[in-house]
Amino acid sequence: VPCSYIQLARQARRTREQQIRQIIEHRKLPEIGLDDSLIEQWLNELSQMDSNNFLGNIGVGEREGRVYSSLVAKRHYSFSHGIGRSGDINSVQPKAAGSSLLNQLTNELVLDTVKYLGLRTIKSALVIPMATGMTLTLCLLTLKKIRPQCRYVLWSRIDQKSCLKAILATDLIPVIIEQIQTDDNEELHTDVNKFEQYLKNCTNLNEICCIYSTTSCFAPRAIDNVVELSLLCEKYSIPHLINNAYGLQSTKIIHELEQSKRKGGRIDYIVQSTDKNFLVPVGGSIVLGYDQESLDRLSKIYPGRASITPTIDLFITLLSMGRRGLTDLIQKRKLLHKQFLDKLIRWTSENTEHILKTKQNPISIAVTLTQLPSEHITQLGSMLFSRRISGARVIQIGKKQTIDNYEFENYGSHSSTSKYSYLTVAASIGIQEEHIDLFIKKFDILYKKVLLMSTNQTLNDLNIVD
Amino acid sequence: VPCSYIQLARQARRTREQQIRQIIEHRKLPEIGLDDSLIEQWLNELSQMDSNNFLGNIGVGEREGRVYSSLVAKRHYSFSHGIGRSGDINSVQPKAAGSSLLNQLTNELVLDTVKYLGLRTIKSALVIPMATGMTLTLCLLTLKKIRPQCRYVLWSRIDQKSCLKAILATDLIPVIIEQIQTDDNEELHTDVNKFEQYLKNCTNLNEICCIYSTTSCFAPRAIDNVVELSLLCEKYSIPHLINNAYGLQSTKIIHELEQSKRKGGRIDYIVQSTDKNFLVPVGGSIVLGYDQESLDRLSKIYPGRASITPTIDLFITLLSMGRRGLTDLIQKRKLLHKQFLDKLIRWTSENTEHILKTKQNPISIAVTLTQLPSEHITQLGSMLFSRRISGARVIQIGKKQTIDNYEFENYGSHSSTSKYSYLTVAASIGIQEEHIDLFIKKFDILYKKVLLMSTNQTLNDLNIVD
Amino acid sequence: VPCSYIQLARQARRTREQQIRQIIEHRKLPEIGLDDSLIEQWLNELSQMDSNNFLGNIGVGEREGRVYSSLVAKRHYSFSHGIGRSGDINSVQPKAAGSSLLNQLTNELVLDTVKYLGLRTIKSALVIPMATGMTLTLCLLTLKKIRPQCRYVLWSRIDQKSCLKAILATDLIPVIIEQIQTDDNEELHTDVNKFEQYLKNCTNLNEICCIYSTTSCFAPRAIDNVVELSLLCEKYSIPHLINNAYGLQSTKIIHELEQSKRKGGRIDYIVQSTDKNFLVPVGGSIVLGYDQESLDRLSKIYPGRASITPTIDLFITLLSMGRRGLTDLIQKRKLLHKQFLDKLIRWTSENTEHILKTKQNPISIAVTLTQLPSEHITQLGSMLFSRRISGARVIQIGKKQTIDNYEFENYGSHSSTSKYSYLTVAASIGIQEEHIDLFIKKFDILYKKVLLMSTNQTLNDLNIVD
Amino acid sequence: VPCSYIQLARQARRTREQQIRQIIEHRKLPEIGLDDSLIEQWLNELSQMDSNNFLGNIGVGEREGRVYSSLVAKRHYSFSHGIGRSGDINSVQPKAAGSSLLNQLTNELVLDTVKYLGLRTIKSALVIPMATGMTLTLCLLTLKKIRPQCRYVLWSRIDQKSCLKAILATDLIPVIIEQIQTDDNEELHTDVNKFEQYLKNCTNLNEICCIYSTTSCFAPRAIDNVVELSLLCEKYSIPHLINNAYGLQSTKIIHELEQSKRKGGRIDYIVQSTDKNFLVPVGGSIVLGYDQESLDRLSKIYPGRASITPTIDLFITLLSMGRRGLTDLIQKRKLLHKQFLDKLIRWTSENTEHILKTKQNPISIAVTLTQLPSEHITQLGSMLFSRRISGARVIQIGKKQTIDNYEFENYGSHSSTSKYSYLTVAASIGIQEEHIDLFIKKFDILYKKVLLMSTNQTLNDLNIVD
Repeated sequence: VPCSYIQLARQARRTREQQIRQIIEHRKLPEIGLDDSLIEQWLNELSQMDSNNFLGNIGVGEREGRVYSSLVAKRHYSFSHGIGRSGDINSVQPKAAGSSLLNQLTNELVLDTVKYLGLRTIKSALVIPMATGMTLTLCLLTLKKIRPQCRYVLWSRIDQKSCLKAILATDLIPVIIEQIQTDDNEELHTDVNKFEQYLKNCTNLNEICCIYSTTSCFAPRAIDNVVELSLLCEKYSIPHLINNAYGLQSTKIIHELEQSKRKGGRIDYIVQSTDKNFLVPVGGSIVLGYDQESLDRLSKIYPGRASITPTIDLFITLLSMGRRGLTDLIQKRKLLHKQFLDKLIRWTSENTEHILKTKQNPISIAVTLTQLPSEHITQLGSMLFSRRISGARVIQIGKKQTIDNYEFENYGSHSSTSKYSYLTVAASIGIQEEHIDLFIKKFDILYKKVLLMSTNQTLNDLNIVD
Repeated sequence: VPCSYIQLARQARRTREQQIRQIIEHRKLPEIGLDDSLIEQWLNELSQMDSNNFLGNIGVGEREGRVYSSLVAKRHYSFSHGIGRSGDINSVQPKAAGSSLLNQLTNELVLDTVKYLGLRTIKSALVIPMATGMTLTLCLLTLKKIRPQCRYVLWSRIDQKSCLKAILATDLIPVIIEQIQTDDNEELHTDVNKFEQYLKNCTNLNEICCIYSTTSCFAPRAIDNVVELSLLCEKYSIPHLINNAYGLQSTKIIHELEQSKRKGGRIDYIVQSTDKNFLVPVGGSIVLGYDQESLDRLSKIYPGRASITPTIDLFITLLSMGRRGLTDLIQKRKLLHKQFLDKLIRWTSENTEHILKTKQNPISIAVTLTQLPSEHITQLGSMLFSRRISGARVIQIGKKQTIDNYEFENYGSHSSTSKYSYLTVAASIGIQEEHIDLFIKKFDILYKKVLLMSTNQTLNDLNIVD
Repeated sequence: VPCSYIQLARQARRTREQQIRQIIEHRKLPEIGLDDSLIEQWLNELSQMDSNNFLGNIGVGEREGRVYSSLVAKRHYSFSHGIGRSGDINSVQPKAAGSSLLNQLTNELVLDTVKYLGLRTIKSALVIPMATGMTLTLCLLTLKKIRPQCRYVLWSRIDQKSCLKAILATDLIPVIIEQIQTDDNEELHTDVNKFEQYLKNCTNLNEICCIYSTTSCFAPRAIDNVVELSLLCEKYSIPHLINNAYGLQSTKIIHELEQSKRKGGRIDYIVQSTDKNFLVPVGGSIVLGYDQESLDRLSKIYPGRASITPTIDLFITLLSMGRRGLTDLIQKRKLLHKQFLDKLIRWTSENTEHILKTKQNPISIAVTLTQLPSEHITQLGSMLFSRRISGARVIQIGKKQTIDNYEFENYGSHSSTSKYSYLTVAASIGIQEEHIDLFIKKFDILYKKVLLMSTNQTLNDLNIVD
Repeated sequence: VPCSYIQLARQARRTREQQIRQIIEHRKLPEIGLDDSLIEQWLNELSQMDSNNFLGNIGVGEREGRVYSSLVAKRHYSFSHGIGRSGDINSVQPKAAGSSLLNQLTNELVLDTVKYLGLRTIKSALVIPMATGMTLTLCLLTLKKIRPQCRYVLWSRIDQKSCLKAILATDLIPVIIEQIQTDDNEELHTDVNKFEQYLKNCTNLNEICCIYSTTSCFAPRAIDNVVELSLLCEKYSIPHLINNAYGLQSTKIIHELEQSKRKGGRIDYIVQSTDKNFLVPVGGSIVLGYDQESLDRLSKIYPGRASITPTIDLFITLLSMGRRGLTDLIQKRKLLHKQFLDKLIRWTSENTEHILKTKQNPISIAVTLTQLPSEHITQLGSMLFSRRISGARVIQIGKKQTIDNYEFENYGSHSSTSKYSYLTVAASIGIQEEHIDLFIKKFDILYKKVLLMSTNQTLNDLNIVD
């Protein structure tokens, strides 16, 4: 094969290697995503730096990263040692230099990514191979460790079980601060006053582990007023844990978080889901912090090793998106949220329902179901489900639920004083325009079907085809 | 294409489907492993039962299992929803019937497998997508929940950081019970008497969370005397948590566990690693229990969702092994442990060293390093490492280590009164005979190299080629 | 797992199976392409119908489809038996019902596809696992078989080696009919008169194997006048073989072919490349015919078996495209050809060059290089190559080339009487708009560089950055 | 990550790269096979040297190696340009340096492999991406080219259709030389005398294209007497084409071929199947020659490009086997052939049948079916087929078959004078011992079933369970 052909090929190869080298050097998400083959090649090179893949490795320990099934080895790109060592989930493994590098690099890419998304004051990011719920528990255990007398968590009510259960898994006691409904609209807001009252009246602040707020949530609950809560935390020297499960996809939520810090508030940990924000399978979360020390404390409390899978998924996905791909997704979501809202407003105006006004919720939308016979309202949910519509939630007021001795009125609606039954839908990252249209079409039919349930009419009478 | 050809093909296909049907019906590990393509086909069929893979699915929720990268989707066989719902890691997901089935089936296959391995009295098994350390923490948090007054964990000392850190991550306090060295041999045994003394003298047994014992460990520590400890637990109504990290690969350890129960002892949770016992990548563990209720309690404490990856890895691997493949691995390990021991005994007899007598450790072997100059002894470790020998540990006595305010003499040797520096190696599942021989050859050279360090001689003088 | 979840999942699965069933029943390319996982699932199901994948198959023959490497098995979806039996490349294999079905189905999908593209009178299609050149040879061998006295092929000159070599591989003798240049433009046209003259003067028409024409080609050669040639073939009862290598991507070429038939002309075989038209790797071709008998004759002359790989590639690609995907590609190509032409016209007007007028070539464009010093003109080609521009061809007039005793003037230009040196580029299927712009930018620089070669100036003098 | 870890990892990586470098330098099959990940990595690196995978490549030609489906790209490791250029199947492509390198390297590895297998005098090897039948046709076309007057092929009868059809596809005329049955045994031998007679009597030897012999074949035909035929070819200056379809797996056949050359015989081309000898899917063949010139002539007659798939399959498989893996397979086959024969002899002695004595056939075995009622004998074949036994052939004497005007008595038995109906089975490369046992068991039952067909008995009467 002539030299000139080879030279050209070599040069082309260098261009590819250059892309990798730049990412390694600058630890920044590239502007344009890498193609799949380059990402896989890089992963393969990294995994070959792990001892289990060394040619001529002799393993005489109790864990040697051996993998029985080639299917399994393949799906893990031959990574086998996980991340973390006994003392620290973020520490380097002598047996697994490649895994260790991949872990560090991914954490730095995530840090760059969240800064790029607008959280410019963040100092450190850690991918934890557990979903948000368990990671929140880990954060609470870490805070408890530095506040040995603590017993209580001040929690702004949100009706998602795992948020509460993250507290209950530790033996901390939740102090539930109900949402308030403002006069002029139907949105549920953080009752900042009640938080402050509680702190003022508290005789021993050391008994309080932290304030635990939530940003991303279902309408009509607003994102918590993290700015004011952060200022309270600073004022009373109380840690602040934020559940930002799917908040990275919203420019508004990011703005609120960034403002909290810029205005001098206190935030210790912000926890977010990898799957809900970056379109990977369930399994990981990201903890963000404003100083390295807090995150070190967290990583050092983790006993033993952990899966590298969520790290790999995130590594592949971020590199594949590049800044441009990520920006596109986020802008598209914002746009589609607006479209979804507009189309639902149009629908409500034709159906004597209305949208609950929730300016402070940039993702979820709540549509009242006032006209539906209350005895049939839950059927709407199962009807939607059986039409392959997933994620729409029907909330019927008046239901009580007890979780671990804690009783909640109107569970699901985030508030003991909700007045309407409603349906929530979300325009979350990755949603397609056609799905919005299809949803409205199908919902309209099913709504009418339920509407007719107490009469003797059927859809046929209205000339509607189901 | 003629009918007869098609018919034959259909019939062949039915044979394959039959294999799957039998496993689903009997929930038993098949005698002979399935081939890869059948396993993959099954996984694909299951994942198509999840809503994110439905044709025509309309997702209007905040988590719709969308996956950005096709590389990522592929490595997860398009599973995306993980396992667990807010309340319970083992609960069924409406959006993900396939994932839920896979999870249930894997738990049942694991139960059948451990029964087949000899733990016949076990009633329930749960794959947890966290490694052993964090899973032990989860068990402790669960026990703490039902024993609200508890503060202490009675812990039989073992010098592996993550064992201790699993306690420290909760805010329970470890009561460290040192190992004892029996007169007639050099093995370290559980100090059962001291455990009983402690319990006898305890004024409020409710303050004790549990006894926390360890089976698999490095020589010269023996596996804990789980029979006696279980009987103590039963007698004093104290929970018993067993760290059986890599014990499923040893018929001896399984025998001890089974005996503990048969003799009427109490065991609440046995925790083992998926990677160390079943040759999958790090990331999961298995919790075994003797009643469904205990495991339900555990699964219900877990907040939120979790990765399905360790479940998939185990599903693939177990089906791929079949009973026969697993038995072969376990028998081969036992045989190679014996060979390794014999070969090391021969080596010691030629080098004025000896093997620490440890009948109660079926996996790990400790070789004294009495002849080596103590100032050079740790170099042996790094020399082994740089020859691509992984897993061999050099323990030098006389070292103190402090972990979270707890100080340990001779850390690494499991005992404050160890007398010898030594090297440990293990014959763990998957080890190859040729690796044993290569290890001894290389170790012999390096041993001699270190031996000569205080003299002026080199290996050349002894005509040894490094 | 609750029944309702399973039911929904089953229903979703049925929707997917429905897609496959419809294709099997109607043998038509679906409107919308299938997703990758469905295609792979289908392939896996088909390959399991082959005996080498039967569970419990006992192979005691000399060819049992055994595959050593799992990498190889995987890349072939476990198909191993190829297609064809000793007598016939299209015949069914008893050992491989799945392969046979796949082969038949693909041929029918291809037939539907070419009809959809406009070749409505075509009756039969056959995917041949050899590239166009060797397939043209096979067609010639087949024609020779039914015309035992034949010795000559009437061939409309085209300067692509493999077109001529397809004749030379048989021992037929090419009668080379030069292109003619029409007065009013610079395009090279089929010299239909000379063809007819030759036939008229021929004493024994049985000595003529066929007329062999070419559609897709580099400008300034036009596509052959297949309408007139077909009419000649009909008139003189001479077979007509058409090399339509990359003509399926052009609506114009398809129109000409369809017209040839509709006007009563004779066409025996039309051969096209799978890779050039359908974006698969090199390796296959498609033979189209107007009666089943001709194609049967072709398939029956093929000795032995053949690879199923090009069939699999085409199956995947067509199903993945769907009609819509294919239409998009073809329309986009047409559009980009126009853009490319327009942009080059603009360039020529600024550089005292011009585009050779070639209305009858819908794919390739020829740009004169009259201003360049002739001694440096070929350097332009290697310069383009080393800038990673592939596919641009620089044709310098005045070169002779001898292929197997046949001498050609101005080889590469399709004509002994060409007047200009020129560059050809093509807008072929899959081209991107940005590539056109980048090409023109780079070409402009290199053109100027060569222009300056006979002067003492450099690009710097013109303030151009290379 | 500490330097020492990285250094160790780098060193391990170098060991891997070293393996590749050695193969490139020495062009020899390695002793021990490479592992899959290393092979894939190498393929990926090679394919990145092709222009279609260059980052920043601008394609303005008519064939740019674009691939639509990522499934297709993946299965071809992103190779897309195939092999060969218009003039020559073995020539280098400027656009595809990686493909070209892979092609050259594979041809050299194949050459080394066949030498290692015992064909030490071979000078050149060429992988042709067509199966044996079509490749034999290509060889004949090449020979015809240098012998322009030739019309006949002297062919030693073998009843496999594709062998004959390889002649018929060219328009050469087969001169069929029947096999002879030696007095002392039942084996069919090459009638060397008749060959010589024909040549002696021939007035114009230039009319003979070649002698075309076959080695591997079904018993009771022996491998052709290639030694004597080669000497005839040398004596009369006639080319010699050998169909060695599955002969590379037999040490005996290799010995005969090597002897032919060493004794001064003439062999022009030896053609063998890649799938039958090296356990890859159908699609390729290997042509071996004793001088570079003959193979160049062959490669230069091939018009256009061709698939690289068979080359990739062979590359992967040979590297994966290594010399040791290949040797193991070949020795195991030899052993199992002996076992199969012994077990069948035992069976025949119990069933009043016998094995046709065929010392000169090292692969296939023929068992007489003298006791079976002739009207039911063919049913045995379909019964075997429907029990998933593939490759066993039932030959019933007395059948005529006409192929393209050539009529054969006792078609399938290679001889017009065969006396027995019989069954053939083969012990070919990759056969498993358990399959031999299962075959005999099932055959025994079916044989008895057919035996009873003319009586009124059933298997039940004989207490045999089917």
